[in-house]
Amino acid sequence: MFKRIDHIGVAVEQIEPALALYRDSFELELAHREVVEEQGVEAVLLDVGESHVELLAPLGADTPVGKFLAKNGPGLHHVAYQVQDIDATLGALKQAGVALIDETPRAGIRGSRVAFVHPRATAGVLTEIVEPAAGAGAH
Amino acid sequence: MFKRIDHIGVAVEQIEPALALYRDSFELELAHREVVEEQGVEAVLLDVGESHVELLAPLGADTPVGKFLAKNGPGLHHVAYQVQDIDATLGALKQAGVALIDETPRAGIRGSRVAFVHPRATAGVLTEIVEPAAGAGAH
Repeated sequence: MFKRIDHIGVAVEQIEPALALYRDSFELELAHREVVEEQGVEAVLLDVGESHVELLAPLGADTPVGKFLAKNGPGLHHVAYQVQDIDATLGALKQAGVALIDETPRAGIRGSRVAFVHPRATAGVLTEIVEPAAGAGAH
Repeated sequence: MFKRIDHIGVAVEQIEPALALYRDSFELELAHREVVEEQGVEAVLLDVGESHVELLAPLGADTPVGKFLAKNGPGLHHVAYQVQDIDATLGALKQAGVALIDETPRAGIRGSRVAFVHPRATAGVLTEIVEPAAGAGAH
C-alpha cells in the first residue's frame, strides 16, 4: 500500500534559518520551493534518499500551520507516504474503517494528489498520502 | 551526510493497537521488535521503502517517551537519518556549530550506533543519527 516515506513535514516560523540548517549543516540538496496558497504555506523540499524533508512556514496566523505553531511551537508536523493509486488506497482505508480527513484527493505540491488520514485514526500522527504527478514518481 | 530517512519514531501508549493499524490497515511488514531497557521503551520496526516506522511504547512513566506522552500525548516523536560514519558526522556537525545531545554515539536498536541532535538546534525536531550495525546497512 505505502511504497515509501514521501516526506516528513516540519513546521517552522521562517523558512530561511531552517533551510540553512538542513541545506548547509545537514548537507541536503534543495529540490523545490513553492507557495501553496490553498494550504496557506510556503513549502521547501530537500532531498534525502528516496524521501524529502518538507519545511513549512505559514503565510499567516490563521492557517493550519500557523495554528499548529501557536499551539505546539515548531517541530514535526506530519508524515507523508507515497502510493501508486491514491483512489484505491483511500478506498481500502475506508473499507478498513480508518477515519479520513479527505475522502477524495486534493491538489498537493508539484502537481501531486494528496489526502490526509484523521489523526484520531493514527494515534495523533497527522498522516498524508501522496500520489506523485505522472512522471514525478522517482521523487 | 544523511543517506536516507532511517525511521520516524512514533510515541504510543500501547504497542498492540498501533501495530494493528500500521501492519493490518497500512499493510506495512513487521521487521523487528525489541525491548530497549536502556532507553526505557518497547520498540517495533515496520518496513516502508528504504525506511521504517518505529513505534515506541514507554516501559514506565519516568522514561523519556513516558514523559513525552504525559506532555504531548501520542504522536510523532523523532526522525532518524542514516549515515555511513556516525563519528565523522558528529564531528562535522560539531564543527558546524550544531548543538548535540550526544557528542559520542551510544547503543541503539539492532546493534546500531546512534546519537541525538539537540532540538534547540533543529527548531524543535528531535533528530537522531543512526549508523547501522555492519551488515544491516540495507535496512
